[in-house]
Amino acid sequence: MPLWRLGMFASLALNAAALALLLPRYIVSHPHHPGVVSLDQQHHACAPQPGTSGAAASAPSTGKPAVTSNSVIHLDHGDPTMFEAFWRETGDAAELVVPGWQTMSYFSDVSNVCWFMEPDFDQQVRRLHRTVGNAAVDGYHVLVGTGSTQLLMAALYALSPADAVQPTSVVSTAPYYSWYPAVTDFLRSGLFRWAGDASSFIGDAYIELVCSPNNPDGAIRDAVLGSGGSGKAVHDLAYYWPQYTPITRRADHDIMLFTMSKSTGHAGTRIGWALVKDREVARRMTKFVELNTVSVSKDSQLRAAKVLRAVSDGYDGGASASRHRLFDFGRRKMAERWRMLREAAAASGIFSLPEETSGRCNFANETAANNPAFAWLRCDREDVEDCAGFLRGHKIVTRSGNQFGAGPRYVRVSMLDRDDAYDIFIRRLASLK
Amino acid sequence: MPLWRLGMFASLALNAAALALLLPRYIVSHPHHPGVVSLDQQHHACAPQPGTSGAAASAPSTGKPAVTSNSVIHLDHGDPTMFEAFWRETGDAAELVVPGWQTMSYFSDVSNVCWFMEPDFDQQVRRLHRTVGNAAVDGYHVLVGTGSTQLLMAALYALSPADAVQPTSVVSTAPYYSWYPAVTDFLRSGLFRWAGDASSFIGDAYIELVCSPNNPDGAIRDAVLGSGGSGKAVHDLAYYWPQYTPITRRADHDIMLFTMSKSTGHAGTRIGWALVKDREVARRMTKFVELNTVSVSKDSQLRAAKVLRAVSDGYDGGASASRHRLFDFGRRKMAERWRMLREAAAASGIFSLPEETSGRCNFANETAANNPAFAWLRCDREDVEDCAGFLRGHKIVTRSGNQFGAGPRYVRVSMLDRDDAYDIFIRRLASLK
Repeated sequence: MPLWRLGMFASLALNAAALALLLPRYIVSHPHHPGVVSLDQQHHACAPQPGTSGAAASAPSTGKPAVTSNSVIHLDHGDPTMFEAFWRETGDAAELVVPGWQTMSYFSDVSNVCWFMEPDFDQQVRRLHRTVGNAAVDGYHVLVGTGSTQLLMAALYALSPADAVQPTSVVSTAPYYSWYPAVTDFLRSGLFRWAGDASSFIGDAYIELVCSPNNPDGAIRDAVLGSGGSGKAVHDLAYYWPQYTPITRRADHDIMLFTMSKSTGHAGTRIGWALVKDREVARRMTKFVELNTVSVSKDSQLRAAKVLRAVSDGYDGGASASRHRLFDFGRRKMAERWRMLREAAAASGIFSLPEETSGRCNFANETAANNPAFAWLRCDREDVEDCAGFLRGHKIVTRSGNQFGAGPRYVRVSMLDRDDAYDIFIRRLASLK
Repeated sequence: MPLWRLGMFASLALNAAALALLLPRYIVSHPHHPGVVSLDQQHHACAPQPGTSGAAASAPSTGKPAVTSNSVIHLDHGDPTMFEAFWRETGDAAELVVPGWQTMSYFSDVSNVCWFMEPDFDQQVRRLHRTVGNAAVDGYHVLVGTGSTQLLMAALYALSPADAVQPTSVVSTAPYYSWYPAVTDFLRSGLFRWAGDASSFIGDAYIELVCSPNNPDGAIRDAVLGSGGSGKAVHDLAYYWPQYTPITRRADHDIMLFTMSKSTGHAGTRIGWALVKDREVARRMTKFVELNTVSVSKDSQLRAAKVLRAVSDGYDGGASASRHRLFDFGRRKMAERWRMLREAAAASGIFSLPEETSGRCNFANETAANNPAFAWLRCDREDVEDCAGFLRGHKIVTRSGNQFGAGPRYVRVSMLDRDDAYDIFIRRLASLK
């Protein structure tokens, strides 16, 4: 056999082997289509299944069932599946590969106060905040949590004196995130207790939760209670990212909370982080996570690091910057959706929305609108007192204003669902009279 | 250019592209060698670091620092790094690959009571229990948690009446896992409260935690309190796997807890599961996880499913069964380590250990010894009242019996560390007189 034939043969064999190794990774798995699930089915179905033999691989989940024009549209959770379209375009830049033997230990970095945090996650969090300019990181401890909900509880635990006779009061200005009272009170802790609207609170010892931009209404907020004495503030900055709001200043509060769910859209990864100034507070927050879940999934931390790296690479890679720019995608989508929503509300005539505000965004270096992740929708029709019930009657599931310390004429609507569900929502809303 | 030359060129180009895609994945990352970290450094070091630019990739963590013959050996946590050696041999059978856009939603299966559980994880849990025969799964709900610690709290929440005037008493027979009182009481919940040793408990309303094989002493246990009236039991079966103990029966308790940390050694993945008979209890446990961390990392669930599948494939694959058999590896290692430990204790002459027990293992189909994941070591030297302090003086860090409701003459020692650390521990122990 001449040499060139041998070379050709060897080369083809290598190609075949490479394809065999590569292809299984890039075959897009078929999404489940469990059909349209009614609300009742969603909440009451399901006896334990005997299960199959389990030897055949089953595909990863795809989130809520696919929708059709007759489906009930669920916009009560802020499920951020809008961002899937962006991440489908990024190829393997944000792909995670974990060999079977990797990161089996509980420990990640025993020299860090947050001993279970992956060093690369810490670095990528700091890098992204420097790139975006939305929060100070120098002199701060980074802590990782199982979503920012766990870190919120960790902050309540860390800020409540262990020897207090009375539980510390936890407050937030209404309308406040419905999860705050639920998370504060579900275990009936003797350390902290929900005390309602911050603007009517009287007392010295409190923890004020400040969400800005605010969930549910998108308002830009500051603490309303003085932070002297034994009052403390926790800043929930989940939505302080360029796709939702102009970045007007580098936030530098004592405790700041962020989450993958709203920054990059990776809710299923369950990764949040806290930037904490005081070492003793950071130590106590870490202790909470330890007692609650021992540590935080390293697989998720590694994925989060990969994803955050891909976001930063879009902007600060210099000449080699990626063409995939998350915040550009996000701003464009949010602006378009808010335009559609305002048009639908106008076409309907029975809804009102918060006024559009804007500001100078230091990140985009231009004036940008506030495009909140939730719409805070008010039903203006005289005979509709329960807006959530009214919308549910039209197969749109939202969260009632009641749950946010506001009236039932308001509802919170997620703006982050997939295009098909959002489009159906918009069409239905515009048709309501 | 003749056709064969063009073909050859194209083929070589494809090879080059394939190599570029494949190579980075298979380059084994260099483990960190942060050197020997003293106890003091471990617990007090670390001011916030300004951090690097973060553009360069940094390797995943490797757990506790590597040890040398002079190192302090940390055996106070049950860090299961012994299992790394097994998983290094399994190639890509347990490798996880997650594309950037996958499993971004909060939701996994809205028809399941545990709506955030990946269907493949559910299937692989059921399959493994059927393969091993250690627990019944038919008629049970599977629930996933961020480690079994979260599910333990979930069970306390689910079993405590929300309207009770007094918190429900939580008890366990001494010596009990030191984490039980800590996890029960750290939030000073009004729903449940630690009430100590089950064998001296008097009362009607209680939750008994039954750990079998028991942490710390490896004993096989049953509930000691009757389960009539308003008493309930939670069975923590973290160690009921063939590497630790003979599988003598298919457990079928109302609530059974398991964890990846001890079954396969993937502690950093933070995945535990519960098998729960009653639907309402399963619903309330799911509610706890929701309020605590919203859901459970899907990346970790997918990894756990992959790992559990690889374990089952070792045994029930029929003719195509894998040659990698986790429980064979585990039993061999544990038997060897226990032999070494008993020899070292005999050589020293100042320590005693629980007697070896054995039983008929239905899984291995032969008589097998109980080889617990922890050694419950007693210092017999008259003048040593604080065994943990004595061992710490010889650079062996263990957990004092005090923390388990037993005396300070006892310590708990992890048997699951890496070979090098375990070998140093054994040599040191044998030399103590």
